[in-house]
Amino acid sequence: MSDQYEVHPHTKVVRGPNRASYNLTQIHDIIDDALICHVGTVVNGRPAMIPTAHWRVGERIYIHGASKNRILAAIADGAEACLCITHLDGLVMARSAFHHSANYRSVVIYGKGTVVSDDAEKMEHSRLFTEKLEPGRWDHIRHPNKQELKATMFLGFDLDQVSAKVRAGDPVDDDEDYDWSVWAGVLPCTTTWGAPVDDARIKPGFEGKGYQRG
Amino acid sequence: MSDQYEVHPHTKVVRGPNRASYNLTQIHDIIDDALICHVGTVVNGRPAMIPTAHWRVGERIYIHGASKNRILAAIADGAEACLCITHLDGLVMARSAFHHSANYRSVVIYGKGTVVSDDAEKMEHSRLFTEKLEPGRWDHIRHPNKQELKATMFLGFDLDQVSAKVRAGDPVDDDEDYDWSVWAGVLPCTTTWGAPVDDARIKPGFEGKGYQRG
Repeated sequence: MSDQYEVHPHTKVVRGPNRASYNLTQIHDIIDDALICHVGTVVNGRPAMIPTAHWRVGERIYIHGASKNRILAAIADGAEACLCITHLDGLVMARSAFHHSANYRSVVIYGKGTVVSDDAEKMEHSRLFTEKLEPGRWDHIRHPNKQELKATMFLGFDLDQVSAKVRAGDPVDDDEDYDWSVWAGVLPCTTTWGAPVDDARIKPGFEGKGYQRG
Repeated sequence: MSDQYEVHPHTKVVRGPNRASYNLTQIHDIIDDALICHVGTVVNGRPAMIPTAHWRVGERIYIHGASKNRILAAIADGAEACLCITHLDGLVMARSAFHHSANYRSVVIYGKGTVVSDDAEKMEHSRLFTEKLEPGRWDHIRHPNKQELKATMFLGFDLDQVSAKVRAGDPVDDDEDYDWSVWAGVLPCTTTWGAPVDDARIKPGFEGKGYQRG
């Protein structure tokens, strides 16, 4: 298997091609580092979008939600989807307004979704999603019952029509602007996980036992 | 003026209506707290999406990018857009797999975009964008020249077909599940700004003078 995704006509990055990546490992990492993605599709000829959680299994990315959600239902009915995952890593402060930018890692995935219809598979995806939130948690929680599985739609998308864009590092100003009297550089940002907050109805003995995400 | 946005047929939140908000101030705050949004539209009948920076002026949200970007160009040509802004505030860890959730604040905006074509207006939007990145910065940087303004498209979207969804607080489990032997609560997350990183070609005297975002 190649370590690069195939470049399709509409996954070819045209604007800023030097930031493009089709590398499998890099794209997997961008997907796995994120907990949420944005899913867009066309409903009755109009664009529609939701943020939702995702997880990856090999060359597929999965989402789930209420079976009656109109966006998920449209995708289940065959509407093409577009999934986007974005990490903002910093603000790029240049000497010229024009060259201000952002450091980021993003992935865009195009394709039709496949509905997971088998209950055992849906159960396994419940497990995978929960384990992404907290490794080992599945063994301690109540698993979905038949009714809950029925109320939840799981959709998988092949990682095939996929591309990444990545920007990192210093601003790139026009040569003649480097002498401007202004600070230039990067304002880095990251997602930080705080101390777990106990539920008000925490079971006695479990206080302060929450999982600390890295 | 009402303090609530009108509820349109397709901005009416159907799934999880108790999380819906149409409140002006709350929606403004969710928009202003974010630096990037996801913009979706329909290009040749297919969904397409990009992450991009945004800023707000009163009842309009603005984005900008390369004039030749195919998604911006489609919107400029009249394609309807959908903008989504999402803050992930935490992971909601329940006793049952089914009730795991996220705390979040999101806004979805539908509508057609208006191209800003006047150079003075484009200049003013360059200023507003830069000032959102760092208040006061505009006075110290090189402003866009005619060619840069031409290469940049600015699009505005009315805040009219807009809704928010907000979830906060503890997990909500089924009553019979509260006795499960597992920790439950919220794993909070936030965007943290690190110390500014000087450009390798920083002008002497400006070392360590970067703006620290709050």
